[in-house]
Amino acid sequence: MKTVCQSSRLEWLTPNAMQVIEKAGRTCYKSEDKMTPGSSARLVRQLLQSKHESVIEHASASFRFITDRGVTHELVRHRLASFSQESTRYCNYGKDKFGSEITVVRPVGVVGLALDIWHQGCLATEKAYFLMLESGATPQIARSVLPNSLKTEIVVTANLREWRHIFTLRTAKAAHPQMRELAQQALDIMRGELPVLFEDI
Amino acid sequence: MKTVCQSSRLEWLTPNAMQVIEKAGRTCYKSEDKMTPGSSARLVRQLLQSKHESVIEHASASFRFITDRGVTHELVRHRLASFSQESTRYCNYGKDKFGSEITVVRPVGVVGLALDIWHQGCLATEKAYFLMLESGATPQIARSVLPNSLKTEIVVTANLREWRHIFTLRTAKAAHPQMRELAQQALDIMRGELPVLFEDI
Amino acid sequence: MKTVCQSSRLEWLTPNAMQVIEKAGRTCYKSEDKMTPGSSARLVRQLLQSKHESVIEHASASFRFITDRGVTHELVRHRLASFSQESTRYCNYGKDKFGSEITVVRPVGVVGLALDIWHQGCLATEKAYFLMLESGATPQIARSVLPNSLKTEIVVTANLREWRHIFTLRTAKAAHPQMRELAQQALDIMRGELPVLFEDI
Amino acid sequence: MKTVCQSSRLEWLTPNAMQVIEKAGRTCYKSEDKMTPGSSARLVRQLLQSKHESVIEHASASFRFITDRGVTHELVRHRLASFSQESTRYCNYGKDKFGSEITVVRPVGVVGLALDIWHQGCLATEKAYFLMLESGATPQIARSVLPNSLKTEIVVTANLREWRHIFTLRTAKAAHPQMRELAQQALDIMRGELPVLFEDI
Repeated sequence: MKTVCQSSRLEWLTPNAMQVIEKAGRTCYKSEDKMTPGSSARLVRQLLQSKHESVIEHASASFRFITDRGVTHELVRHRLASFSQESTRYCNYGKDKFGSEITVVRPVGVVGLALDIWHQGCLATEKAYFLMLESGATPQIARSVLPNSLKTEIVVTANLREWRHIFTLRTAKAAHPQMRELAQQALDIMRGELPVLFEDI
Repeated sequence: MKTVCQSSRLEWLTPNAMQVIEKAGRTCYKSEDKMTPGSSARLVRQLLQSKHESVIEHASASFRFITDRGVTHELVRHRLASFSQESTRYCNYGKDKFGSEITVVRPVGVVGLALDIWHQGCLATEKAYFLMLESGATPQIARSVLPNSLKTEIVVTANLREWRHIFTLRTAKAAHPQMRELAQQALDIMRGELPVLFEDI
Repeated sequence: MKTVCQSSRLEWLTPNAMQVIEKAGRTCYKSEDKMTPGSSARLVRQLLQSKHESVIEHASASFRFITDRGVTHELVRHRLASFSQESTRYCNYGKDKFGSEITVVRPVGVVGLALDIWHQGCLATEKAYFLMLESGATPQIARSVLPNSLKTEIVVTANLREWRHIFTLRTAKAAHPQMRELAQQALDIMRGELPVLFEDI
Repeated sequence: MKTVCQSSRLEWLTPNAMQVIEKAGRTCYKSEDKMTPGSSARLVRQLLQSKHESVIEHASASFRFITDRGVTHELVRHRLASFSQESTRYCNYGKDKFGSEITVVRPVGVVGLALDIWHQGCLATEKAYFLMLESGATPQIARSVLPNSLKTEIVVTANLREWRHIFTLRTAKAAHPQMRELAQQALDIMRGELPVLFEDI
């Protein structure tokens, strides 16, 4: 059994997102003549303040996350996003490609005794998974004993309005600690890329 | 540890769904004058055959499913539906209300040795879950060792166009056996209620 | 040319909507044992205050509106709703069924000279529409001269979370006067049906 | 009054869309090791043939259309897209910026007498619109007499799965001629950019 940490990677982002949004927004008022070198930041701030957020839907971003299946069960509830996820039906962790072991994600904030118990629990499920495969079960059946901590990889693509919504909900105190850590990683990346669009979250 | 089987229950259905759909469909052509006692079945069959399925979105149905969390992770990928699900963050299975045991769903088609291994694996996760709670972990952290087989309850509401789509995908041979059994149960219920709308799936 | 006023009619509503929502909400916490005669209103108010609005998606309502096509062009922008609308492609207003005249919706708040000009403008489009039909154009081509004021009928079905969103946006001061009048009519109907769910808008 | 033709312009497209889709698709099976220079076309064709179209949602495209408001009333019915449209509420066609005239789109396939009648009808609405403005009406009220043929500009952003759906419906014989011409223009552009993804429509 291998243990990994969560990670977030930006796969792609709409090129020139600020200008794309400015041009789309100015279509409504036919005010394209007012575009100047510094005008996009000003316009985008106005759109956000006046809650005219539909315009920022014209730019998108795609992330690749490594996290656990407890987190992805929550993440895929966001309905305005597209998902492609490592399949526990089609991946056979008994195959060489996977090193004949399962991979789990270290839970955020768990230490000492609780971490030991977690580790033992995950090992027991790994053992049961491989025994079920040996007894003739297919991977999609044997997955039934695998735990929420199982590592998974998921590509999530959404427009920037939806990412703002996801980050607002998922970095809040009420969010699950595992989800919160992941969402914060992604938000930090987006703040680096497009500060005006994510500075207020 | 308690073991249960999957179940499906219809919570509510749009009253007079066939007439609701007929009236909505006839709005497009302003042909309400052509409504007769037998006309709704004929019109709905025409809508389905001509793939004018947007009209059947005007009627909805809501189901309550008892299934495992492996199935619900797939189910909540349907984006045109509404979900309320038993929360592993807020439910504490160590509380009296839950009998201080976890409940798991018997996997479809698993027998003999594989079933024994599955059972042992689930027991190990139950033990780890309660030990983590005892060591001070919150339910939302301790859930990390719980398996895909964990019983969950979920209310799913969708319009009839989306239910047709769900049933078509999820009763097909390519679907996961656990999902397929559940979808077939719900489809059988809808066929009893609204044969014209579900007879061709 | 016939002139009519806007109207809103409730077509159907989820039966026992308050109990449906309460039961769905209590599924998350498995607190169904706490249901009492007065508990649904209390729970629904809590859901709304804590912005746990996904639960109220489990109840839906369907309206039939008579309005003009300027309003419906805005209305169909709401993406979480289902629409069936009188078709200017398939309805031929030159047919007896329509009295060989077009119907227009009286604009809200227009009086005196402006109303006369509006009336003359609409009459000119009616004349052009029928002349185009006579010269061999199909209704879907002749519709090109018809004005925004053309009367249309549309069935709109959405869940109660979306209706709350629609009413909040469309009864606000910033909304178009014609849209605002229509949304206010529908909101008043829903307040009569389900006061707890619509009293705060 | 000015008359223009419809036009379509690609605003942006996900960079390296074929590779983006391939990488997202291979995440499901963890088969990223099988990527070779020619593998993306093969994989995308497989995804399309096996109707595993969710994967192509990870790439998007944005178009700017000039068309009439009859077409956009249909276009905005596509719910999985984002729209920013020239506003008849906020644009005042009596302002210098617009040359104090309205612009209309020449209807597809209309010639001879029918075209003359259409032109006269549109002129009458233009006259009524400016008289209403002079009599004190705001642009959002005066728009009520403007015809379906009014020129409008709209930015439409959607993922490639949705564009395939839009093109399939809107280039079909059953589509409105005006919509069909526009959709065909955009499809031709996408076929030039990404032949594998649009060659089968």
